[in-house]
Amino acid sequence: MKCSVYIATSVDGFIARNDGSVDWLDSSGNREAEMGGNADMGFGKFMSSVDCVIMGRNCMEMISSMNLTAGQWPYGDTRIIVLSNTIKEPPKNLKGKVELYSGDLLELAAKLEREGFKHAYVDGGKTIQSFLNLKLINEMTLTRVPILLGEGKPLFGKTTQNIKLEKSEAVAFPNDFVQVHYKVSYL
Amino acid sequence: MKCSVYIATSVDGFIARNDGSVDWLDSSGNREAEMGGNADMGFGKFMSSVDCVIMGRNCMEMISSMNLTAGQWPYGDTRIIVLSNTIKEPPKNLKGKVELYSGDLLELAAKLEREGFKHAYVDGGKTIQSFLNLKLINEMTLTRVPILLGEGKPLFGKTTQNIKLEKSEAVAFPNDFVQVHYKVSYL
Repeated sequence: MKCSVYIATSVDGFIARNDGSVDWLDSSGNREAEMGGNADMGFGKFMSSVDCVIMGRNCMEMISSMNLTAGQWPYGDTRIIVLSNTIKEPPKNLKGKVELYSGDLLELAAKLEREGFKHAYVDGGKTIQSFLNLKLINEMTLTRVPILLGEGKPLFGKTTQNIKLEKSEAVAFPNDFVQVHYKVSYL
Repeated sequence: MKCSVYIATSVDGFIARNDGSVDWLDSSGNREAEMGGNADMGFGKFMSSVDCVIMGRNCMEMISSMNLTAGQWPYGDTRIIVLSNTIKEPPKNLKGKVELYSGDLLELAAKLEREGFKHAYVDGGKTIQSFLNLKLINEMTLTRVPILLGEGKPLFGKTTQNIKLEKSEAVAFPNDFVQVHYKVSYL
């Protein structure tokens, strides 16, 4: 099963402010820019390529706090697995939309693969770090939001080894967001 | 006086390992790639646009440790100012090549401007952070080396405010390094 990261960070590498807020995602960049066919910067195309989502609890709680309408829900009916060792039930507004998982991540990946899943969208800082250190991430799409926050929750953390990135592609969108795509290689 | 940053970082934002080493700069990426006219990824063109260099002491000591020959010296006869409050003399192998400065950075920038300097190359993590917080940096060229180091000396640090980046440009080189250029905007 292929595992991909698709995430936005500030240019200094944060995915959220220290209090978890992501207000800067929507308020940054040139908001008057004509984006042509790239209004979603490729998210829809990426989303249609995955058949499951694996995210951390923080990530789920952020989504829960948004109280998305059915029309705003970005995941369609894609299966969503939320990692948590502490909670056993999803928040009310995500009931029936996500399932909780507690346990070994290699086992989770193997289980999903046995069930026929081909491509997982791995989301959330700590979850991405865990998957990278288990050598499970195959590709990363990083969208750099044109702002320096100075502090916050970092996308990346300590790694158990240096991780090599390959086959880089880059595009600067008219709104000044820069999106980079890499294949991940482990030695 | 325009102040520009031109620096390489790992994809997770480090400019050196914790011990200061930058071995990964030369060993990363696709070293077999045909770089055409971009072997230096624009450094020569950038260097020819500046008329002075301002760097921190750590940065100078790294350069000193390389024991560059005259042919390897990348700065030509461009004036180099090294910031240090602790040392008063440059290392032996940089005597006559760099001058030391201790004191206020706004005064330094004003002094260089009065002397007719038009474009400073600002280098070194702490120096760049100080110049950003004084709103002195006008442009940044960040070259992302395709590796995750996991830890090291970060390019960016705390900022006194959010800093907005504009007019983004991006290029992925055949060696998988990605270079991004921004104008820096302060609110």
